[in-house]
Amino acid sequence: MEKLKSVEKLTDAFSKLPGVGHKSAEKMAYSVLDMSDEDVELFSSALKDAKRKVHKCPECGILTENDICEICSDKGRHKDRIIVVSYPKDVLGFEKLATYDGVYHVLGGTLSAVNGVGVDDLAIVSLLERIKRDNVKEVILATNPTIDGETTALYIAKLLESTDVEVSRLAYGLPMGGHLEYADSLTLSKALEGRKKI
Amino acid sequence: MEKLKSVEKLTDAFSKLPGVGHKSAEKMAYSVLDMSDEDVELFSSALKDAKRKVHKCPECGILTENDICEICSDKGRHKDRIIVVSYPKDVLGFEKLATYDGVYHVLGGTLSAVNGVGVDDLAIVSLLERIKRDNVKEVILATNPTIDGETTALYIAKLLESTDVEVSRLAYGLPMGGHLEYADSLTLSKALEGRKKI
Repeated sequence: MEKLKSVEKLTDAFSKLPGVGHKSAEKMAYSVLDMSDEDVELFSSALKDAKRKVHKCPECGILTENDICEICSDKGRHKDRIIVVSYPKDVLGFEKLATYDGVYHVLGGTLSAVNGVGVDDLAIVSLLERIKRDNVKEVILATNPTIDGETTALYIAKLLESTDVEVSRLAYGLPMGGHLEYADSLTLSKALEGRKKI
Repeated sequence: MEKLKSVEKLTDAFSKLPGVGHKSAEKMAYSVLDMSDEDVELFSSALKDAKRKVHKCPECGILTENDICEICSDKGRHKDRIIVVSYPKDVLGFEKLATYDGVYHVLGGTLSAVNGVGVDDLAIVSLLERIKRDNVKEVILATNPTIDGETTALYIAKLLESTDVEVSRLAYGLPMGGHLEYADSLTLSKALEGRKKI
């Protein structure tokens, strides 16, 4: 049977998406043929629009469609308190709490010898500049509780050692609602180490 | 956190694809932001290209990028033998066998009272015209082995009853390589009914 080159190209494009194998990509490509011309047009421009409109906030690195993101441009938020995260999506969890009134700083990853991510690949210099410029009083390091996340947090903490900035790291311990029997030994030892008097 | 409207629109577009829920669609949309400008451009035009270039062969209904599909325009294939299928993709299985040298006719679905698909919604009139025009000698009904597929096959068989055309239906029975214990009772009864002397 005739090879449909345009469908193959579309299949290739779909298969570059996360979690999409060749079979699913092919199914998706064929489903596009059944869409209305209008829907395909909308889909096609939605791709280009998202790529064109969304960029990192030049202040903090959060994804935004504005010049400066809504958090950085919010006058009600304290510029002298920064939560440092690795990725834009990590901000979401804190914002859902709706209790934090400071700002954020997105590093854009974690230091990693294995993946070849060095200090210059992360937004560390701009963090230091912000700290100085905005007279930041508190930095909360919220990189992931992994070896790389830990390394990154320790590196930044060391850079700020000689300053007056209060540097903290998120607490480690048992996740709420979890069961003790399922806790891995590293988490358990961290929970024991960080035990608090009640 | 700021709502990224362009990402939401793209998420909506992705979630219209088969087997893609909201969470995966969102993940896909964000992954587009990490693609190169060039890849996004290619993806965007691949969508429009596939939709524009691929159409049904006016002869048989198979999807093609040419005026007439490769099978219909192949002089080596016998035009007087037609396998009738419901969907273009059903042709693939037969073509893989590489033993069939006739042509196909795609109905575009099956008769279905539940889904409101009637005789006029399927390419039945054009099938009758082809049969007459090309002096077709054999029609093999290869609609799905479902109630609707069966109804459709019987309907077409009835239409051809008064003609000289040899009409047949694919055989029912146990799938090769399967296990008897897993065969459903309908398949088993069909297998028994169609038993052959050895």
